[in-house]
Amino acid sequence: MPPNPAFKRIALMGRQRQNGTYDTLITLHDYLVDKGYAVVFEKETAEHVSPQKVNAVASDELSQTSDIIIVVGGDGSLLHAAQIAIDQSLPILGVNRGRLGFLTDMHPNNLPKIEEVLNGHYHEEPRFLLRAEVLKKEEAVAYVEGLNEVVLFPSDVAHMIDFDIMINQQSVCSLRADGLIIATPTGSTAYALSGGGPILHPELNAVAMVPMFPHTLTNRPIVVSADSHILINISHQNTCDAYASADGQRRVQIEVGDRVHIHKKSAPLRLIHPLDYSYFDTLRAKLHWQKGHA
Amino acid sequence: MPPNPAFKRIALMGRQRQNGTYDTLITLHDYLVDKGYAVVFEKETAEHVSPQKVNAVASDELSQTSDIIIVVGGDGSLLHAAQIAIDQSLPILGVNRGRLGFLTDMHPNNLPKIEEVLNGHYHEEPRFLLRAEVLKKEEAVAYVEGLNEVVLFPSDVAHMIDFDIMINQQSVCSLRADGLIIATPTGSTAYALSGGGPILHPELNAVAMVPMFPHTLTNRPIVVSADSHILINISHQNTCDAYASADGQRRVQIEVGDRVHIHKKSAPLRLIHPLDYSYFDTLRAKLHWQKGHA
Amino acid sequence: MPPNPAFKRIALMGRQRQNGTYDTLITLHDYLVDKGYAVVFEKETAEHVSPQKVNAVASDELSQTSDIIIVVGGDGSLLHAAQIAIDQSLPILGVNRGRLGFLTDMHPNNLPKIEEVLNGHYHEEPRFLLRAEVLKKEEAVAYVEGLNEVVLFPSDVAHMIDFDIMINQQSVCSLRADGLIIATPTGSTAYALSGGGPILHPELNAVAMVPMFPHTLTNRPIVVSADSHILINISHQNTCDAYASADGQRRVQIEVGDRVHIHKKSAPLRLIHPLDYSYFDTLRAKLHWQKGHA
Amino acid sequence: MPPNPAFKRIALMGRQRQNGTYDTLITLHDYLVDKGYAVVFEKETAEHVSPQKVNAVASDELSQTSDIIIVVGGDGSLLHAAQIAIDQSLPILGVNRGRLGFLTDMHPNNLPKIEEVLNGHYHEEPRFLLRAEVLKKEEAVAYVEGLNEVVLFPSDVAHMIDFDIMINQQSVCSLRADGLIIATPTGSTAYALSGGGPILHPELNAVAMVPMFPHTLTNRPIVVSADSHILINISHQNTCDAYASADGQRRVQIEVGDRVHIHKKSAPLRLIHPLDYSYFDTLRAKLHWQKGHA
Repeated sequence: MPPNPAFKRIALMGRQRQNGTYDTLITLHDYLVDKGYAVVFEKETAEHVSPQKVNAVASDELSQTSDIIIVVGGDGSLLHAAQIAIDQSLPILGVNRGRLGFLTDMHPNNLPKIEEVLNGHYHEEPRFLLRAEVLKKEEAVAYVEGLNEVVLFPSDVAHMIDFDIMINQQSVCSLRADGLIIATPTGSTAYALSGGGPILHPELNAVAMVPMFPHTLTNRPIVVSADSHILINISHQNTCDAYASADGQRRVQIEVGDRVHIHKKSAPLRLIHPLDYSYFDTLRAKLHWQKGHA
Repeated sequence: MPPNPAFKRIALMGRQRQNGTYDTLITLHDYLVDKGYAVVFEKETAEHVSPQKVNAVASDELSQTSDIIIVVGGDGSLLHAAQIAIDQSLPILGVNRGRLGFLTDMHPNNLPKIEEVLNGHYHEEPRFLLRAEVLKKEEAVAYVEGLNEVVLFPSDVAHMIDFDIMINQQSVCSLRADGLIIATPTGSTAYALSGGGPILHPELNAVAMVPMFPHTLTNRPIVVSADSHILINISHQNTCDAYASADGQRRVQIEVGDRVHIHKKSAPLRLIHPLDYSYFDTLRAKLHWQKGHA
Repeated sequence: MPPNPAFKRIALMGRQRQNGTYDTLITLHDYLVDKGYAVVFEKETAEHVSPQKVNAVASDELSQTSDIIIVVGGDGSLLHAAQIAIDQSLPILGVNRGRLGFLTDMHPNNLPKIEEVLNGHYHEEPRFLLRAEVLKKEEAVAYVEGLNEVVLFPSDVAHMIDFDIMINQQSVCSLRADGLIIATPTGSTAYALSGGGPILHPELNAVAMVPMFPHTLTNRPIVVSADSHILINISHQNTCDAYASADGQRRVQIEVGDRVHIHKKSAPLRLIHPLDYSYFDTLRAKLHWQKGHA
Repeated sequence: MPPNPAFKRIALMGRQRQNGTYDTLITLHDYLVDKGYAVVFEKETAEHVSPQKVNAVASDELSQTSDIIIVVGGDGSLLHAAQIAIDQSLPILGVNRGRLGFLTDMHPNNLPKIEEVLNGHYHEEPRFLLRAEVLKKEEAVAYVEGLNEVVLFPSDVAHMIDFDIMINQQSVCSLRADGLIIATPTGSTAYALSGGGPILHPELNAVAMVPMFPHTLTNRPIVVSADSHILINISHQNTCDAYASADGQRRVQIEVGDRVHIHKKSAPLRLIHPLDYSYFDTLRAKLHWQKGHA
């Protein structure tokens, strides 16, 4: 560790589901401790690691012990950790398990490069989240937040839903569809891309609204400013309730007649990349753009 | 005419191609003259109208005689007039011939409403253009400018072209396709929409790059900041030259080995709308969103 | 009624949900009775009509009293009646409520034209159905049948499902998606069209497999022979069960590890059209092909 | 060579453009001669090989000297050879240069497997072609034939064309687009796939009509019987002529007012595959279906 590293106190996170996550966490822990960094494990992560080795800290106290969160895993693990990082005002660095992610772009074997980042050779990129609040009359009764996207869909499978969409108090359209995806640039290469949405460069302050299997074929994806206030009314003609889900991980119920207010969360995620990071390099690799047909 | 109208001196434009254009121009001319406005015709437009009635002014002198250009016709006519409006630093108002346009949103029969706009009841919306410069080595040898889009395509029909795309000096991808559309928000509802591009709200400072029939299926539309500098290299492996065209109206040749630099033109078009204009209303009407399936 | 009409005994069907259905049913009943036809109402339909006027017959006895079923309503009503028509080996004629359907192409006001059809001026078009059988080990434990499509989807909303697809005992692919639509030509202009599937002409003996929001972008719609035996394995890695649904009206559960066998039902629906029916006319009208952009 | 091989007399073809083609041709020639087969080179192919080694035969005489054509190269080379194979009523076997093709599915290094095919261990698959005849009044003045597709496009780049489409003397629609692809099942994985067309299984007797960048967004791909007679009228309102091209290799001009009659060529290509060939295996490999996102 150099005399004044950018990040001296490190919190490690990862989820048990995937193979190799814990081996990488332990390797990373030992390497960083050996180099003189103060390393703790987020508490739930720690429970899956041999207890004598580690200091466990509750996720809502990480800012007291750490300067940065390093999350090991795939993009799903980083999505999970993002909420904690924002709540704790901590930057986050993603380390994959050998397979490049859109968000977890550090390779686990290159420990010196990870250390370089901690020592200040990094680029910090703000990535905004969307917040969806369920309104009963004018009162917010529930919410979800997502780094990738908010999805509205029926509570019962295989139903269409009808909604009326307003943006900044202007009527956009009435939509009949399987659901609606509102994606951030971060999420534009995830679920929204499968739904025919465009790729949005992460530096754009924009969101893509992608109707899912719209009844009207000309209901195409629309990109609007991320500062828009999107208000969606779940029409009374619907025969079932709806859900708002965020990043495929959290969901809240929306009753017929409720409205959903979707807008940008003020605090962004502070995503850390090595200096040689290139968004387009990741895109090319993940979408197999150099591989001929398909 | 009120004592201090916002626009007192009016230039009228229109193209002969479409039925009804000249009737509307004459009606508009007579109405405005009668109300006390100073009205001239752009010179080429004037040639198709009975000469004793009108004052004709060359398009490059319109700013000396006029405060605003009113163009009568479809979106194509406004695209044509846009270049003059920008060169002359004049705002532009579009009047259709009875069928709503994305850009020509005033109905020709509602003359009092047109006068209301001239009297100050309007909203001015800046719409940016794209400029494509053909570079030989480092020198720009030709250019086109478009309000809707710039399209790169092969000089010979039914050929694919190979190009390498850089954005802000970062490599994006090598693309093999029938061509490439780079569309502004204004153009996102025109040709780019047929090609599978997203709808971009006009207030976005963004452009959509839409590959045309890409050989690699995952080469999907990408939206980037309109402040991007896009540099496209026409690879030496191409078997024919290429063209850059703007708004389907102007084109320049690109030889194999040349590069094209595409970026935002600094001066935007000043597009005038009545106060009750709503972008989404136009979108709903033009895309038949209220008409059930399809 | 002429001496030997093609269809002398008529069964009327319709569902209460839509406005105008019962008025049209009564009008049709009175007109046909007046002309000398033997007219009954399907029993559930009869319950909503004033009882003294009508002869009610259970749906599974219609072939004893009738030569043809006339269904009044939209395409959904005809989909509902199709199963009865096939079980009773009866042809079916669709009368809409003033708005053209893909399947209900007779206008309700043109009673003489409906009578012409009954008198023999018609074209009979066979439309095949798909049958999906849920297999536990090798045994079929449940099934659904659809004229439009069979859809496989997760039992819990907002989950992806993994399946392995075999056709005629050849491995096609492993698919990770929101679901899978297998559509007949009849269904190719319904739900599958919203999902990006192609339009299949009704005379084709083919089905379209349309993956819903596939994780792999190159998983595009595939059209195979309708004589194919499609076998879909719901992989053990799924975290929830699945459903097979037919025409959005019936559904059966599929447990993880079960397989689904999808194949053509041997007996087709006998769909009756007037002699001047044109599939492409319907397509043009329903998809607004003459209306310019969109 | 066994006593009675299925194919005893072999014609070799290949185009000079690609690296490795001639090495593979020579290797194949020597191997087969050594095994006792009678091997000739198609004349144009022979010109690029050292002349003392080979017997050269004009392409229109190959049926006198050979029982089968083996073409070495990519799918483009097989498309080129297909016309000769059909004219000479010869089956064709495709050998790639190390990279799997949709049509050239034999690997060049597995010489014993190629010999196995020649000895009778093969599956013959008929693949039909499309023929497009340009009609002036009722007379055919020119034609092209394609194994993949026929494409209609404007003679001048960056123009849209207007055509009226009839199928079996029924009006389908008026189309305004960059062009129109009519693809066979063989071609459904080539250019038409980039244009959003469906994959058609090769055993289907069907063609896909794929509008290119249609002005009307609901003009979606349509699949019709390959026995259809498609008649396309190049409307008088077009401002430039058109071309019909086949397989990107041959083209003929269509003047405004001409019509194009597109129908199935009666004689199919006899495509030879090894017994373990699976269409879906090729599809999976070529479209990277096993590679996660994209």
